[in-house]
Amino acid sequence: MMSTLATTNRRVLLAARPVGLPTAANWTFSDAPLADLAEGELRVRVSAISLDPAMRGWMNEGKSYIAPVGIGEVMRAGGVGVVEASRHPGYAVGDAVSGSTGVQTHWTVAPERDRGHGLGKIDLRLGTPTQWLNVLGMPGMTAYFGLMDVGLPNLTKPAGETLVVSGAAGAVGQTVGQLAKLKGLRVVGIAGGAAKCDWVVKELGFDACIDYKAGPSAVRDGLKEHCPQGVDIYFDNVGGDILDTVLARINRRARIVICGAISQYNNTTPVQGPKNYLSLLVNRARMEGMVVFDYADRYHLAVAEMAGYLKDGRMKSREDVATGGVDAFPATLNKLFSGENFGKLVLSLEG
Amino acid sequence: MMSTLATTNRRVLLAARPVGLPTAANWTFSDAPLADLAEGELRVRVSAISLDPAMRGWMNEGKSYIAPVGIGEVMRAGGVGVVEASRHPGYAVGDAVSGSTGVQTHWTVAPERDRGHGLGKIDLRLGTPTQWLNVLGMPGMTAYFGLMDVGLPNLTKPAGETLVVSGAAGAVGQTVGQLAKLKGLRVVGIAGGAAKCDWVVKELGFDACIDYKAGPSAVRDGLKEHCPQGVDIYFDNVGGDILDTVLARINRRARIVICGAISQYNNTTPVQGPKNYLSLLVNRARMEGMVVFDYADRYHLAVAEMAGYLKDGRMKSREDVATGGVDAFPATLNKLFSGENFGKLVLSLEG
Repeated sequence: MMSTLATTNRRVLLAARPVGLPTAANWTFSDAPLADLAEGELRVRVSAISLDPAMRGWMNEGKSYIAPVGIGEVMRAGGVGVVEASRHPGYAVGDAVSGSTGVQTHWTVAPERDRGHGLGKIDLRLGTPTQWLNVLGMPGMTAYFGLMDVGLPNLTKPAGETLVVSGAAGAVGQTVGQLAKLKGLRVVGIAGGAAKCDWVVKELGFDACIDYKAGPSAVRDGLKEHCPQGVDIYFDNVGGDILDTVLARINRRARIVICGAISQYNNTTPVQGPKNYLSLLVNRARMEGMVVFDYADRYHLAVAEMAGYLKDGRMKSREDVATGGVDAFPATLNKLFSGENFGKLVLSLEG
Repeated sequence: MMSTLATTNRRVLLAARPVGLPTAANWTFSDAPLADLAEGELRVRVSAISLDPAMRGWMNEGKSYIAPVGIGEVMRAGGVGVVEASRHPGYAVGDAVSGSTGVQTHWTVAPERDRGHGLGKIDLRLGTPTQWLNVLGMPGMTAYFGLMDVGLPNLTKPAGETLVVSGAAGAVGQTVGQLAKLKGLRVVGIAGGAAKCDWVVKELGFDACIDYKAGPSAVRDGLKEHCPQGVDIYFDNVGGDILDTVLARINRRARIVICGAISQYNNTTPVQGPKNYLSLLVNRARMEGMVVFDYADRYHLAVAEMAGYLKDGRMKSREDVATGGVDAFPATLNKLFSGENFGKLVLSLEG
C-alpha cells in the first residue's frame, strides 16, 4: 500500500511553564513545512508517543537530570514510528524505530549530530510498537533496572522478600510487580480504584493490591494485612502520604527505590517530604533515586529477557491507547495526573 | 590510696515520658542499698557517663532500634568506671571497663545474664576514660563505620570527594571530619557559633566550617562557597532545614548518611521530612540510615586504627566534661539540645 507523504509537520510546542496542573495556555500547535533532508538525516513518521509523568518535570525550569524543554520548543516525548525518508546509511525507508521523537507527526533526526536522540531500530517480532513504548521501552527499562540494580532483591532468601509497588497499574508499576513475581518475591501493589486492583491481582498475578482510594487508612491497613513480614523493597512512583505510610512498615535493610513522585509533580506548594524518613535510621534502610538513562548500555539485555517473558506469556503488557493525534496531547497528558489511565498511556498518531 | 566503698547506689530513673524537651518532671532520683554480689556478677563504680542525642529517643515509647527505657527504670547510658567488686572470673577489682552502665553511681552486671550490657575492658594506654566515651567509644565507632561503611568514600578519586558533616563540633561530627581528612577528602563542617567553627577549622583541620546561626541563608551560601564541586557525602546528625539545604547541593551518586536528627528529637509536631528528597532521584543519590551496634564485631579494628591516630596526634579528641554527679544529669542532657556543648558531652561522677 502506498501512503501519500505529508508535506507539513504538526507540532506541539511548550508555550509557557505551568504552575500546577498544565492547562491549554501551556501549549501551542504549529504546522511547519517539511524541509528536504540534509546528508546524515532521516525522517520518521511518528505512529505513537509515550506519555510519562516525567514530562511534567521537563516542563519546569531549572536543573534536573535532563535539561528542561525550552519555551517555543517541541515538547519532548519518546515515540515510535517508521522511517519515511533517509539520507543516513544506517536507516532505510520502512525501518521501524523508536527514539526521542517529540510530540509531532514527523521527526527529522541526524543521530551523529543530535544529542539525546535515543534513535534505535525496534524489532517488531519481539513486541508491538506500543509494547516498545511500554515493557520493551523506557517504563520497562525503568522497572527492570530500578528493581534489579537499585531494589537489589535478595534472590537467595528462602521464603522470598516482600516488594510493594505504588502506581501498580501504571506503566512502570505493572512491570515491576510482574518481574518481581517472576523472581520469586511476594508482591503487593498499591493502585487507585477497585478495577485497577482487580486487574493487578487477577491478570498480572500480584499477591495483593491495595486500593488507596478506599479510605484514609486503606494503605496502612492494607500493608498490615498483606505484608505480615514487613516490606523489604518499596518501589515508589508516587511519593506523598503513601511513601510515609510504607516507611512505617519497612524491614531492616529495606531498599526504597525513588523512581517518581507523581502525587507531588503538580504541587504549587513545596514537595511533601517524607516525615517518617527516620525509619531509615531505625531500620538501617536505604532510599535511593534512579534515572533509567544510566542503564542504556544494558537495555539490550533487559529487552531480551523481557521479550522472552512476553512471548511465553509470563508477562503481560497493557497499554491505554488514546487517539486524536497530536492535538489530543494536552488532554491525554493530564489523564496521567488524575489517575485515569489504566496501563501504559500512549497517544496514537495514526487514524 | 584506699577508697571507702559506698553502701548505696544513687540512680536516675525515668519517671515519665517527655513531651518535647525533657523537664524535671521526667526524672526521679533514688538511693538503693548495694546488695551482695551473686555468682557471675561484678560491680563497677561509674566514673563518667556519656550524654548522647539518642537518649532522647530511648525516652519515647514505641518501636525503635532498641527498646525504650521503662518508666521507673534506671536511665540508659554508656559509661566508664572501675570494677570495685567481682564474683566473675574474667574481671578483677581495679579493672577499667566501659559498658551500658546507666545513669547511676554503681553498676552491677552479670555479662552472661544481662542482655545489651556492652561490658568490656578498656585499655587506658590507648586513651583516657573520657576518650573511651568519645573517639574510642560509641561516637567514634559511629563516625568510623558511618563514614567508611555507609558513606563509602571513593578513595581513588584523584582530587578527592567533598564531605559535609553537621554537628561538626559534636561527638560524632568531630571524628567524622578528622577521619575524612585523614582519608583525603575535602571536609566542610556545619556547627552553631563562631567559636565552634573556629575550633573545627583551626584545631581539627577541616577545610571550612559553616556557622548555621550566622543568618537564614548561611548554610546555603556557605555550601556554595566551600563546596564548589558539590557534595559527595553528607553525614547528617541534625535533620531539619539543614538536611534540605544540603540535598540541594549533592552530586550524582552522593551518599547521605542518616546518623541522627537532633533538630527533630524534641518536636511536639511531626518530624519535618526532607522536602528536597527528590534530589535523590535527580542525582541518583542514596540516603541510608545506620546504627552503630551493627558493627560491634569490628569495633576492635576501628579502635586500633583510631588509637593510632590519637597517639601520633593526627586526631584530636575534645570532651566537654560536666560535673555535679548523677544529680546534674537532667540539666546536662538538655545542653545537648540547646547546642551548648562543645565536643563530646560527658558527665563526671567523680569529685
